Amino acid sequence: MNETARRLLSAAVLVPLYVISFTYSGFFFLQLPVLGAIFVFIGLKEFYGICDKGDEGRPFKGTGLLFALILVLLYYFKFISIQKIVEIPEIMKTISVFLSPGFDLIVPTLFIFFIVIFTLQITKRPLDGAMFSVSTTFLGVLYLAIPFGHFMLYLTFQEGVYYIFAVSGLTFITDAGAYFGGRWFGRHPAGLKISPKKTLEGYVTGIITAALYLYCMNLLWPSITGHKPAFGFMESFGVSIVISIVSVIGDLTESAMKRDAKIKDSSSVIPGHGGTLDLADALLFTLPVLYYYIKFKELAGFSI
Amino acid sequence: MNETARRLLSAAVLVPLYVISFTYSGFFFLQLPVLGAIFVFIGLKEFYGICDKGDEGRPFKGTGLLFALILVLLYYFKFISIQKIVEIPEIMKTISVFLSPGFDLIVPTLFIFFIVIFTLQITKRPLDGAMFSVSTTFLGVLYLAIPFGHFMLYLTFQEGVYYIFAVSGLTFITDAGAYFGGRWFGRHPAGLKISPKKTLEGYVTGIITAALYLYCMNLLWPSITGHKPAFGFMESFGVSIVISIVSVIGDLTESAMKRDAKIKDSSSVIPGHGGTLDLADALLFTLPVLYYYIKFKELAGFSI
Repeated sequence: MNETARRLLSAAVLVPLYVISFTYSGFFFLQLPVLGAIFVFIGLKEFYGICDKGDEGRPFKGTGLLFALILVLLYYFKFISIQKIVEIPEIMKTISVFLSPGFDLIVPTLFIFFIVIFTLQITKRPLDGAMFSVSTTFLGVLYLAIPFGHFMLYLTFQEGVYYIFAVSGLTFITDAGAYFGGRWFGRHPAGLKISPKKTLEGYVTGIITAALYLYCMNLLWPSITGHKPAFGFMESFGVSIVISIVSVIGDLTESAMKRDAKIKDSSSVIPGHGGTLDLADALLFTLPVLYYYIKFKELAGFSI
Repeated sequence: MNETARRLLSAAVLVPLYVISFTYSGFFFLQLPVLGAIFVFIGLKEFYGICDKGDEGRPFKGTGLLFALILVLLYYFKFISIQKIVEIPEIMKTISVFLSPGFDLIVPTLFIFFIVIFTLQITKRPLDGAMFSVSTTFLGVLYLAIPFGHFMLYLTFQEGVYYIFAVSGLTFITDAGAYFGGRWFGRHPAGLKISPKKTLEGYVTGIITAALYLYCMNLLWPSITGHKPAFGFMESFGVSIVISIVSVIGDLTESAMKRDAKIKDSSSVIPGHGGTLDLADALLFTLPVLYYYIKFKELAGFSI
């Protein structure tokens, strides 16, 4: 089986799974924390693999994984207690009140995490490499758990499903568009040390195809869902461009990580794509960015 | 002038300044963000100095300082909009609504910071050392700005001033007690690679003197302020022990950083004490820990 066939086969499995993850509300969206935990677990193992410099410093893998899972749960209960899609049982309401009280537990959890890693560093590790070990342990959790948390929080918006389709589509289409645009029209290198083969034509194609994607999605959305598209025409255009650019930064960020570690793929868990991080890198940046755009829009008094 | 005299002189300047910083409400506590910005600025420069490995990676100092200042401002407006000590002018209310809206801007700011540093890494820096540069830039801001933010948030509690006196006193007395306890009774090394000279007797003395401090403070508090101490007798005992231990971890954490960088003092900005981080290290950990203890107590329905 060649590379393209593998990619298509992986996509044929992953895309439906992805769509079900945020549209199926049967068991109080419990598939979200479960799939999220699996995603964060694999992604974080890859991230920590990238950051392993042996005696010169390496992340506290177990502790990082534990706190990443705690954050996934905190975000899940935050989401489930705000969302209005399904009625949740008493027991979940009780847990929600406990885990998502009057103030946000995310910052205190991050702070306790910080203290715990340093305590481990002091008691278990040699003197060298402390800053590297602690910083990368921390950053990995932030890099994966916070965006996944925001993925769930989208569903607290009235038009949450629309937004997830928009941001996910824009992100993947940018990548695909840039890939084919680069192959077909690529002439001028974009001049990035990290990805020397990437061309300006590729990036421009990525941005254009993304804008076209959202335009088509907006056209089809009413007949599929019966709802009006949440983004207007000009807004869709602006959102497409910004998300495309952020998507490219997300992709380059993961390349920068791998370059630093001198590896090509973050792992080989997804046939034809490489690792979880290779697949999700851009989404890790675009998800929170669009989320906060909508939040600010809500604050400014616009309907969302 | 000998070392002890320098220490005392520094203390004679810093202690009153510290107390005024959170008790003077004249100009809407504007001294807090100003002093906080100075503290965070100097502390972060020290932290970034510790993390500078030249070509193998070094923090993005300017960007880190900028985001640290943004966080100080965000926390200030969060505090000033919640506190009930002074009436604030309309202009500050407007800014508060903008900077401290229905949701917390801390997490999105941290996320934008993350994206900005990676963008700088991709465009401006060589391929090697990316993970180290980005992670340490990020961690330094978290390490300094978040605790200082919580320092201000204490003043949103009815008995905020009591809590700040409690946590600050416990933290500094633990350190002083451990120092003199170690000198006078020290026999058995505590067995920590980071601080091989520290003794068990020193640590125990630190914990005992801290408990005594809070006991005395509770005795004097009503006659000085006319208020009952916010912590009861047994609670004070428990709080003392926990804060003492967290304080020691904070102190060792900064030692771990300096050991990694192979330096003795974080700088020499404070005569007799060394750098800002040397002075404030323990407080950076104890401030958020006690803050969240009180928050949870409030949630559990106790009066605070």
